[in-house]
Amino acid sequence: MPNGPAAPDSNGMTAPASRLDALDDQACFLLLATVPFGRVVATSGALPLVIPVNFTLDNRVVVFRTAADGPLAAATRGAVVAFQADDIDPVTRTGWSVAVTGVADPVVDASEALRMGQLGLEPWAPGQRDTYVRIVPGLVSGRYLTGSA
Amino acid sequence: MPNGPAAPDSNGMTAPASRLDALDDQACFLLLATVPFGRVVATSGALPLVIPVNFTLDNRVVVFRTAADGPLAAATRGAVVAFQADDIDPVTRTGWSVAVTGVADPVVDASEALRMGQLGLEPWAPGQRDTYVRIVPGLVSGRYLTGSA
Repeated sequence: MPNGPAAPDSNGMTAPASRLDALDDQACFLLLATVPFGRVVATSGALPLVIPVNFTLDNRVVVFRTAADGPLAAATRGAVVAFQADDIDPVTRTGWSVAVTGVADPVVDASEALRMGQLGLEPWAPGQRDTYVRIVPGLVSGRYLTGSA
Repeated sequence: MPNGPAAPDSNGMTAPASRLDALDDQACFLLLATVPFGRVVATSGALPLVIPVNFTLDNRVVVFRTAADGPLAAATRGAVVAFQADDIDPVTRTGWSVAVTGVADPVVDASEALRMGQLGLEPWAPGQRDTYVRIVPGLVSGRYLTGSA
């Protein structure tokens, strides 16, 4: 029950309870499309790796660019990864978080790479980042926090 | 070389190159202390789990609260996890990302739990979240992006 009864605080005041509601897949992708960057979560040398990247959505496929010989390309090639984004206002404590879990793979097909080039995705980070990586969504989960502050 | 030569764009204009610079541990913790929430990255059922939490720093130990019987408590108990936070301005494409990797453990010692209670950490999410989880930093990494936009 996300919206439980309000509990009195130490001053005896009753604040409205905060809520945490699940988002369906459609809402998750609508919200994802509103932010320009998220975080790729992968494993590197048995340790978690979390790297922010700017991205775009190609239908429901997350696409980002990276360096062909970099650690992010190595950690995502054929791997199950997560892509997470959120937008939470610390003042109202209201906002959302979405995570897409799926298999990541670099685009190697030439015509598909050409098509990716039309997405208008320019990497924010410096250096040659000409490899497009796609994360095809398997699991999608999202939650919306409504604050009590 | 983070600050490479500027390349002409498709209009022949030369923009200043963006930069990505490594942050030392001190800078990482100073920046972490400026944000109220970050993301716990763990593994659950062999899949990556990414959950935003509000947190505080107890010296260099990341502390957050969760439900004793929840998925976050289960996924972090004695596990190597990452805690990541960032603050990146999408307009200037300037900002930072910090990731702390270390072993997470719930606080079970009563006097330590009492001390945690003095940190003023109130969970944003609803429900009973009376377990304090500590992530003792092993690896710390951070990067500062200076945009070219």
